[in-house]
Parts: sequence; C-alpha cells; structure tokens
Amino acid sequence: MFAVIMCGGSGTRFWPASRRQRPKQFLDITGKGPMVVETCNRLDSLARDEEIILVLGEKHLEEAKDLFKGRGVHMLAEPVGRNTAPCIGLGAVYAKHLGCEGPVAFLPADHFIGNPSRFLEDLRAAEEVADRGGIVTIGIVPNRPETGYGYIRRDQGQTDVAGRPAYKVLKFVEKPDLEKARGYLTSGEYYWNGGIFVAKPETILKETKEQLPELYEGLQRLARSLENGEFEEEFKDVYGALTGISFDYGIMENTREKVYVIPTECGWSDVGSWESLYELRTSERDKEQNLVDGETILIECEKSFVSGSAGRLVACLGLKDTLIVDTPDALLVADLNRSQDIRKIVDRLKESGKNKLL
Amino acid sequence: MFAVIMCGGSGTRFWPASRRQRPKQFLDITGKGPMVVETCNRLDSLARDEEIILVLGEKHLEEAKDLFKGRGVHMLAEPVGRNTAPCIGLGAVYAKHLGCEGPVAFLPADHFIGNPSRFLEDLRAAEEVADRGGIVTIGIVPNRPETGYGYIRRDQGQTDVAGRPAYKVLKFVEKPDLEKARGYLTSGEYYWNGGIFVAKPETILKETKEQLPELYEGLQRLARSLENGEFEEEFKDVYGALTGISFDYGIMENTREKVYVIPTECGWSDVGSWESLYELRTSERDKEQNLVDGETILIECEKSFVSGSAGRLVACLGLKDTLIVDTPDALLVADLNRSQDIRKIVDRLKESGKNKLL
Repeated sequence: MFAVIMCGGSGTRFWPASRRQRPKQFLDITGKGPMVVETCNRLDSLARDEEIILVLGEKHLEEAKDLFKGRGVHMLAEPVGRNTAPCIGLGAVYAKHLGCEGPVAFLPADHFIGNPSRFLEDLRAAEEVADRGGIVTIGIVPNRPETGYGYIRRDQGQTDVAGRPAYKVLKFVEKPDLEKARGYLTSGEYYWNGGIFVAKPETILKETKEQLPELYEGLQRLARSLENGEFEEEFKDVYGALTGISFDYGIMENTREKVYVIPTECGWSDVGSWESLYELRTSERDKEQNLVDGETILIECEKSFVSGSAGRLVACLGLKDTLIVDTPDALLVADLNRSQDIRKIVDRLKESGKNKLL
Repeated sequence: MFAVIMCGGSGTRFWPASRRQRPKQFLDITGKGPMVVETCNRLDSLARDEEIILVLGEKHLEEAKDLFKGRGVHMLAEPVGRNTAPCIGLGAVYAKHLGCEGPVAFLPADHFIGNPSRFLEDLRAAEEVADRGGIVTIGIVPNRPETGYGYIRRDQGQTDVAGRPAYKVLKFVEKPDLEKARGYLTSGEYYWNGGIFVAKPETILKETKEQLPELYEGLQRLARSLENGEFEEEFKDVYGALTGISFDYGIMENTREKVYVIPTECGWSDVGSWESLYELRTSERDKEQNLVDGETILIECEKSFVSGSAGRLVACLGLKDTLIVDTPDALLVADLNRSQDIRKIVDRLKESGKNKLL
C-alpha cells in the first residue's frame, strides 16, 4: 500500500521548541523520535519505504533528507503551501506515476498514535473500502467534548469491513461550541476529523475533476510532466499557481455518495499543544504529576512540565501547573493550562521583527 | 574617615545568579553596579579610596582587583572566613597601620541604601560619638515586624549628636518570633541590627583585649608583622588559627557601657532574597507589578520577576508571583514568595555533587 505523508504546516504551538525552520513534525516531542519519522515507521508492515511519499515544504527538504538518510522514501518539496486538496492531489498523481493503482493512505506527519497496530488494522479496513472506489476517512472516536476539532457525522446504515464497522458519512461539521460538542459526544454518531484519508489515485483525480476542475487541470499538467521528464521544471510554476483549499472543504463536503468513515480507537492525538503533550505522556509523570525532560531539580512542584533541551540545569521551586521550555536562544515559562495561547507570543515576535526566533 | 568593607560571605540566596565564586556582593543585582563597588562609591564624600580597606575571601581577590582597577583601595584577602570579630579586628589593625587614629566605619559590602546622603549624615554622627571612645552601631528603624534580623534595644537616655539622637544600647536581641517582632515594632525602642559599626581602632583593640584575649594576641602578632614587613608571611598562619566569632556576640554583648546606637531611616535593605530585591525595586515595576531585566515578552503576567542574564529571550505567559532567573548554565523558576527556600536547591546541588553550579 502506498502512503502520502503530509508534512506541510509550520505550527507555532510548540514554540520555542518548534520554529519555522523546524516545525513540530520534525521534532521529537513524544520521546519516540521526530514525528514524521515515527509516522513512517508506524506504517512498517503496511508500506515499504519505496511506497512512501513525503510532501513537505521546500525549506524543510534538507532536514528531511537528513532524517531519512539511506532510506528509499520519496520526497516532494512544495515551493509554497497550498493546503490539503493540492497536496493530496499531488500525492495521488505521484503515486500513480510510481505505478500505484490501489488505495493510498494520506496521513498528517505530526499526529500521535497510542495503539499503532489497531491503527494499521483500521487502515487495512479502509483500504478494502477504498479499493471498491470509495474515499474513506478514519474517524476518531471522541472521549471528550473537544471544541478544537472538526467532526464527521456518520449516516445510519452500517457496513462491516474486515470485522469492523464502516459508515457512510452524513456530513462534515465545523469546530463546534462546547454545548454542541457535548451533544456530539453523547450521541455516538460523531467522530473527530483527524485529516486521515484513504482512496485510490484515480478516485481522487475523478472527484477533483468534478469538484475542483482548475486543480484537476494543474494536476494533469504535473502528471504529463512526470511522464515526459519535465517535472522539475514545471512543478514550481504549476503548484505555485494553484488555489489553496482543504480536501475536506473542496472535495469531501460535496462527494457524499462515495465517502465513508471507519471509526477508530487507536489512541490518536494531534498533539496540538504543550498541554495535550503533557496529557499524552501520563505514564512518564512522577507522583506529583510532573513531567520532565532534561536535567532538573524539582522542589515541591506539582503538575508541571519541564522541557529542557538547552543542556542547562533547570531548577524549580514551589511551582504548580507551570510549563517551562528551555532552548538555547529562547525560554518559555507559561501557565500550562494556557499553552494554546502561545501563538500570542509568536505574534508579538512577528510584530517586533524578531524573525530569527520564529 | 577610614572605612573597612566586609566582603566575606558566600550567600546562596541569590542562586543561580550568585555562586561561590561570585557571591552577592560582587553582583549587580540592584542595577547600580556590583554591590561592593556601590558600597564604596556611596562613601565618596566620607572616605578617599586610600582610606578604604576591603576584607574579602581569597578566592574573590581577582574579581575585586578587576572591579577596582586603577583605584587605590586596599585589599586584604582572608585565607579563610572567621566571622566578623576577627574581620573587624584585622581592619582595625590595618587602618591603624595606615596611620588612622580616628573612627573607622565597618560596613557589610552587600547592603542596599536607598538614601545615601541620609546614611552619610548618620555615619558622621556616629563618627562624633566614636571619637569620644564609644563603639557605635547604626540601628535601622524597622518598618515591619521582620523575624529574619537581630534587633538592638536602646536604653532610655538620649544624647543629641549633630542634631540627631544617639542612645546607649540596652541589649542585642536574637531574631525574634513574629509576636515578639510585632511588639518590638510598636514599642519604638528596637532597631534592626544591620551589622554596621563605627569605632576607633584603639577602642576596638582595647575591647578585644578584654573580651577576646586570644583574638587580641593574634591581632597583635599581625600588627607587629605589618610594622616589620612580615605580614605576607604571617597572615595566613595567624588568621587561620583564629577562632571564628561574631563581633556582636564576642564584643558588643559584653561592652554595654560604651556601646551606642544611632537610629537611621536611610532606606536600608540587606537584600536578603530575590523577593526582597523585588520589593526594593518598586519604582522599576510595570503597571502589572512585573519587574524585568533583559529581553522579555510578558503576556498577561503579574507580580513576576524576570532576571535574564543569559542573553536569551525570556517569554512569559499567564504567570503570577513567579521568579525566573536565567543564567548561561542554570535556570531557576520559582514561586517568588518562596525565594527564601532557594537554599533547598543549593543543598540538593551539594548532595548530588554538582559543584560547578554552586
């Protein structure tokens, strides 16, 4: 099975550990290696390196080459980010070029999966549905009324695939308010939209032709250039001229007939903030619920998270719910419960022109 | 007027800014330069550089030479610390050797004085009393029921010296509990003991002869060695053999007859903790009561103190009552109200053998 790993995005939520030049997907924030490497390694039994295509930002190409030295994964460096519809389209065209006729898994590079074998089973089930011409999304079974994600509402009818249920999708739902999110949680009919899709290249291209003809036209040019050896020359111009749009909004929303959701309870997390990383690493905390990386001294601290990567001693006294991220050129100290507001610091850096810290 | 500046002590309360090699008196923590330099400069109109004697630890001699480059202050490097009675005795002997016959001011190197001109007036008054053969201590008028200082209880009778009152001392009092401290504050008869003394060398030596004959014997040997040019050879042996004892306990306690206190309201602080430094620098705080040194970004923070000397950006989000001290090889994050417990961190460093951070 082919896999397209989407490594775009230059998230700011893990500042100062993450920077424009080294966003979250290239960081080892879960302690299992850089997330993009972990995402590929997780597919071990599903896809060979030669079947993996990384789509990443041009400025991250060298970093990625370093991380995957000696491995046969393919890399496509986007000259500019154009959101997921062009990215998935590009992946589909390239997989087809490499000889892929069956379903391809499209996966974000920066998600955590607590139970990889369960996740692979779900991908296998999705492959089966996709092989019959569907576009399958993996729906994450929610365990809290999260307002930070989009949701997928399933339809009533249920199909069994490889011993697990698959549903037609009734609709994609924007991030809800808390009241709605609570309703979604109790209804049992809603899943988190993790941005994970499985479909055959030809299905993707056929749907793109119908929904986003301009994108389809660009993808056709790229497909031709791959065949006649002019891809290198064409890629920048063609891709740069595409309109940025998400796959959910541009394709999935209007393709209801062929869209399926396979629910999963694979311990997924998008690791969207320092706080969610802290939640994720429960088993690594001490008995006062402190989580610590690097050399530290903690005295009478609780529920605090110290991420030290500057090689210095971090000494803490009497802290509670505190986040400390120590890097060689910038230090963050924050209320751990407010780690989603770190963008405010990044905004301030932008305003004041401190670009080298971004 | 001669002045002996006592620069011993290797306090741990300003860790990680202060280290064994660079204790508080050599740090610029108040923003006015290294405290020992500020202590000397404050005496500008009272003592010339040639009348100033620094008594300091051997390992701090180079640092002191750097700080006072090109200035004529005298330096005596103690091979080991022996508390204040030997230190003051040594200063007296050395001042006498330099030709001093009048009163000498003995001052700790690491205190802050908010109103230096007021302080100098009080020292002048003390000089007048000391010139008549008394030992004068400057008593700090308390403004809170502090339990961290010793107190001086004045006697009833009052003398006017240079337009300000001087009192005989009734007794020296150990650090009180809170209830007693409250009583001291309301009585108006107690002052904080700031460890500041004024007396003629001959008075000091005469009292030492009576109270601490062994110390007197050592001092006599040093005095002789100064006269016959053998001080360098003798100093280490003689000083190392002395018994460590404080001037308050060893001399003042038992010399009641000739001991006076001159009250002062000169904005004194011993700057005994990060919190007290924060209190001291009220006028430098922003409107959310944050105090900041170095390059910082503060978002929705209050009553926090950032001391950044590592040249890195310190970004803070949603903090309250938080102390951050950023140095090149160690970082401290603490509850500002618990800064007196920083010794616990220093203890932990000692236990774990991390001597280079001490």
